[in-house]
Amino acid sequence: MSARETIGALVLAAGKGTRMHSDKPKVLQELLGAPMLRYVYTALDPLFGEGIWTVIGHKSEMIEQAFADEDRNFILQTEQLGTGHALQTAWNELVESGVSHVLVINGDTPLLPQPRLINFLKECLAGHADIGFMTLTLPQPGSFGRVVRHLGDVAAIIEAKDYDESLHGPEPREINAGIYLLDVASVTPLLERLTNENNSGEYYITDLVGFAVEEQMSVIGVDCGNDPHLLGINNPAELVRSESLLRANLVMEWLEQGVTIHAPEYVRVGPMVTLEPGAVLHGPCEIYGNSHVARGAEIYSNTWIKDSNLAEGCVIHPFSHLDGATVGKDCVAGPYARLRPGAVMKQGSKVGNFVEMKKSVLGEGSKANHFTYLGDAEVGTDVNIGAGTITCNYDGVNKHKTTIEDNAFIGSNTSLVAPVCVGKNSLVGAGSVITKNIPENAVAVARSKQKNLPKKC
Amino acid sequence: MSARETIGALVLAAGKGTRMHSDKPKVLQELLGAPMLRYVYTALDPLFGEGIWTVIGHKSEMIEQAFADEDRNFILQTEQLGTGHALQTAWNELVESGVSHVLVINGDTPLLPQPRLINFLKECLAGHADIGFMTLTLPQPGSFGRVVRHLGDVAAIIEAKDYDESLHGPEPREINAGIYLLDVASVTPLLERLTNENNSGEYYITDLVGFAVEEQMSVIGVDCGNDPHLLGINNPAELVRSESLLRANLVMEWLEQGVTIHAPEYVRVGPMVTLEPGAVLHGPCEIYGNSHVARGAEIYSNTWIKDSNLAEGCVIHPFSHLDGATVGKDCVAGPYARLRPGAVMKQGSKVGNFVEMKKSVLGEGSKANHFTYLGDAEVGTDVNIGAGTITCNYDGVNKHKTTIEDNAFIGSNTSLVAPVCVGKNSLVGAGSVITKNIPENAVAVARSKQKNLPKKC
Amino acid sequence: MSARETIGALVLAAGKGTRMHSDKPKVLQELLGAPMLRYVYTALDPLFGEGIWTVIGHKSEMIEQAFADEDRNFILQTEQLGTGHALQTAWNELVESGVSHVLVINGDTPLLPQPRLINFLKECLAGHADIGFMTLTLPQPGSFGRVVRHLGDVAAIIEAKDYDESLHGPEPREINAGIYLLDVASVTPLLERLTNENNSGEYYITDLVGFAVEEQMSVIGVDCGNDPHLLGINNPAELVRSESLLRANLVMEWLEQGVTIHAPEYVRVGPMVTLEPGAVLHGPCEIYGNSHVARGAEIYSNTWIKDSNLAEGCVIHPFSHLDGATVGKDCVAGPYARLRPGAVMKQGSKVGNFVEMKKSVLGEGSKANHFTYLGDAEVGTDVNIGAGTITCNYDGVNKHKTTIEDNAFIGSNTSLVAPVCVGKNSLVGAGSVITKNIPENAVAVARSKQKNLPKKC
Repeated sequence: MSARETIGALVLAAGKGTRMHSDKPKVLQELLGAPMLRYVYTALDPLFGEGIWTVIGHKSEMIEQAFADEDRNFILQTEQLGTGHALQTAWNELVESGVSHVLVINGDTPLLPQPRLINFLKECLAGHADIGFMTLTLPQPGSFGRVVRHLGDVAAIIEAKDYDESLHGPEPREINAGIYLLDVASVTPLLERLTNENNSGEYYITDLVGFAVEEQMSVIGVDCGNDPHLLGINNPAELVRSESLLRANLVMEWLEQGVTIHAPEYVRVGPMVTLEPGAVLHGPCEIYGNSHVARGAEIYSNTWIKDSNLAEGCVIHPFSHLDGATVGKDCVAGPYARLRPGAVMKQGSKVGNFVEMKKSVLGEGSKANHFTYLGDAEVGTDVNIGAGTITCNYDGVNKHKTTIEDNAFIGSNTSLVAPVCVGKNSLVGAGSVITKNIPENAVAVARSKQKNLPKKC
Repeated sequence: MSARETIGALVLAAGKGTRMHSDKPKVLQELLGAPMLRYVYTALDPLFGEGIWTVIGHKSEMIEQAFADEDRNFILQTEQLGTGHALQTAWNELVESGVSHVLVINGDTPLLPQPRLINFLKECLAGHADIGFMTLTLPQPGSFGRVVRHLGDVAAIIEAKDYDESLHGPEPREINAGIYLLDVASVTPLLERLTNENNSGEYYITDLVGFAVEEQMSVIGVDCGNDPHLLGINNPAELVRSESLLRANLVMEWLEQGVTIHAPEYVRVGPMVTLEPGAVLHGPCEIYGNSHVARGAEIYSNTWIKDSNLAEGCVIHPFSHLDGATVGKDCVAGPYARLRPGAVMKQGSKVGNFVEMKKSVLGEGSKANHFTYLGDAEVGTDVNIGAGTITCNYDGVNKHKTTIEDNAFIGSNTSLVAPVCVGKNSLVGAGSVITKNIPENAVAVARSKQKNLPKKC
Repeated sequence: MSARETIGALVLAAGKGTRMHSDKPKVLQELLGAPMLRYVYTALDPLFGEGIWTVIGHKSEMIEQAFADEDRNFILQTEQLGTGHALQTAWNELVESGVSHVLVINGDTPLLPQPRLINFLKECLAGHADIGFMTLTLPQPGSFGRVVRHLGDVAAIIEAKDYDESLHGPEPREINAGIYLLDVASVTPLLERLTNENNSGEYYITDLVGFAVEEQMSVIGVDCGNDPHLLGINNPAELVRSESLLRANLVMEWLEQGVTIHAPEYVRVGPMVTLEPGAVLHGPCEIYGNSHVARGAEIYSNTWIKDSNLAEGCVIHPFSHLDGATVGKDCVAGPYARLRPGAVMKQGSKVGNFVEMKKSVLGEGSKANHFTYLGDAEVGTDVNIGAGTITCNYDGVNKHKTTIEDNAFIGSNTSLVAPVCVGKNSLVGAGSVITKNIPENAVAVARSKQKNLPKKC
């Protein structure tokens, strides 16, 4: 029996997450710059491929938009009446898809390790469980549903607030981790028996366990010890605790793989970032999104990097901020370089302090060493851009392009009023406001004569 | 008996704190940006109100100045001859104020928890103590005064350097924390018996304990375990240890209250800062002084903030430095925004990279996205300020005001020589030096014509 | 017997350090900004003076260059055939130098404490060891050579991969730390017996121990417990672990000596840096190279400092980057000050935000408060440099000098095209491009007249 073909995965992501105090739905809360739900998908995708459904509800449009580039199956739960109701809402679509089993997982468990999940599936299938679920045994079980066992077999899961020692016996420390494998054929008749007659007025998936026990079905609680990676996230403190675990795991892995990470405890690397052995990072630094750092690249401390590609041998000095940038081989950026989306530094080019680049290309060997704004600019090779140069790319309505051809020399404090082109080998005098194109091999000046007068005082 | 009306508090703050190696008196040394003495007052003020006296001596004027805005009772001890002498110096004023008891506390114990203090007062009053004091039991009691007990009752406090096992028995690990409650009637006759005949040549408050025992008074040593919050600060290492405790306590409290604090171990939040649940911080960041961060505001890493008010939904990007700034709803600042005292960003306005604001207002929806200095400027709504714009507010003698009215567009690299006004809807050409007012709906230019010449080479 | 005259030290530094994934040889990998080999020399220099030899091989020219300013004895091992071969390569030169003993130490043990080394030498000499070596006893001995003892005496050192329990008995946890003292007379005949007939095909120094045992020489394994400072560094994880130990040791020492270090866990101070008691640092900050910070200087968080001298009472605000700078008494720099090599701030001068200085002197009391580039400039006393001032020091070929004499006032957005001089007491109008010298007491302007025109729309 192939898990891939017959098990579907259902992610519960409809909740509001009130305790996050946020305008974003809970599953969009971020760990290391990536939303919780991204982590869940990363664990599920290789196992279930297209067989993943996600129940959304609260601010569902934000979730749909966050994953708009991906072909995700979203099921809308218009009223959020509990996990059981979410399951009911999705059930028909799951059944019609032909799956024999459904893995149910909360979208707020971003750290779930894939090997743990695979073992769980195997154990449930091997035991022919009608209902299987993961359990944790915690020193302080808090508000989690308690797992009641009789002679080792699962008898029920009871919500903490509904737990009554006079009815159920001494309160156990084994809790329900909220991850289930349900046999479709067995569970279908149980689903409609769910009620909301409890302290919360919600429909609980957990009640299925009681029904299954009543029906003498096979119910398996897979003991996962006290693995902190399985805990859901319900408030900022839990978010931060999980993020902290994740951060340490990721950084230690990269270190073991040969990335030199000075002050590793202050380095934050997102889950999609890739680092080559021989890359060198200095904490504190942060690298998020789809970034890549090649061998021999060196990233100094106090840097913030997202969605950027850093080629071999490049150096990023402190206080640099890169977002959507491409830094070529042996380039040097910073300190205080700000590379915005579309900034492309070609091989051996240099961007110095207090320089901003946006949607611009800096050609091979070219330099913009100080106080420069390059916006919507295309700069050729071996160009020298003086301190204080500004591409005036915006006229209040539209953005315009600046072209600076090979070997040009732009004097300091120059304003290049786009659209404008500086030709090859041309030179612009310091302090000029350039409004017209400059041909090749020309000198352009636009400034007044200096007058020295005696000072009156 | 109401504690408030009859107990006075005496803070000892006359010492130099030689081991701090600082030009500031010890009680002005700072933890999380606030002086030690501030913390002591914060604990005492709600309990004692105006019934707080502070003995000052070394660099007393610095202390008076630091609290000049508050109505504090300072008593000058011109010579610093020890804690006993400080008490003698202040005693008459305390007695004349009519208090029945005096709480004596060192100004170098900033972490003293108020509940601990209240319990101490209650226990002493309930036990009708003539002298009560807090004790700590430390694994390494170091230089603290040792508490000698006979059959559980306090027999004496002996300074560590005066402790002689042959006289006093095996050295105890219970020490005097330096916080006393003195019954005025009982202690008055003991005070004049203090001498400086000991190894240090100083008058010790602690000797009062011995006298009281001799007189068969009631002396209570209230055991406070090994609470690190009671320890005084005498050198940089102790300062930093206390600050570290305080930092962790404060940040964890905010986290528990629903503030999302990524990398909380790198976040430093001062004791007077207030954060709303739903605010989001990313460590490393620092927030000091009287700052407030509203729900939904997001503060990225590598930010330094003091005395600033951040409204709902605003975003502060990395490498920003705010001091005395007001950031309105949904504003965006940084990266590399420097907002100095009096910088006011109105709703939805934007300050970008390498922008400095000082005593200036940026109107609703207005933008200063790059390389701009706004000093003594008033900017209206929906104004666009081009890169490299500088308000020339200083003529070498005075500061002058720049006014930019609604919907104006300031071209890049513009110098606005104040006092000057740019009228509504007007436009300034890039690279202009504006020295005269510009009317509404005008275009102002002040630049030379461009000349392109062939390059000689 | 004087250790200095008759013991030579041989540092093994020929290896590639493949697992560092770096283009630099292993011993040039850095901890807190200084190469490993520097630390080894720092420990050895006071003991051995000129009697230190270093075997280099892989990228030997990089090592020679890194220490080009020092008179080091380098011996080239052209093929890297193991530690034994390195010893053979160097042996003749050592013998000819007349030393009686040779200390052999790996260049990858930067944390070796000098007292530990001295004790080792003493113990070996006192025991008349023909061969002495340091041993460690580790919980997880990994790939280190195992020390086999018979009745307490060293019988052999066997490489982990060659260890065979059937031959050598239960595997010991005592390992060879790779630091030897060899008696020249005793070891010389053993050296030529080394072979590479083992799993690695390399010549091992360790085999000498077996030979010496066979010859019934005196072999002493000096037990150094599990001192982590003796461990060699072979990969990024080990580098970072050693750096972390070193960092904590250094910072805690400075703190104990009276330097106030807020957030000390985020402060990185290089091994050659000196701090005076009463200096104040705020983490996160980094200070490397030959830097010095005087009493009363305050360095705020988010600063990066190298090879710089900070005088008493100066203040460095956040986000400042200093390299090769001299900051005078009571100066203020930053936030966002970038001081490059040759930047000299004289007493009481001020460099504000987004200001870059390179090979320039800012005179006493002078100010460059915003957006300024001072390159190759000499600025007198009490000069005010307006926002946006740029010294245009580069003409595309050469750098030229700018001189600004005492009491000059440079208006904002001024370009000073070097070589150029602004005379005493002179004033430059905002937005001027200054290309000619300005005499004393003059006003210079180089800008166009402002024209206000009605806007067409």
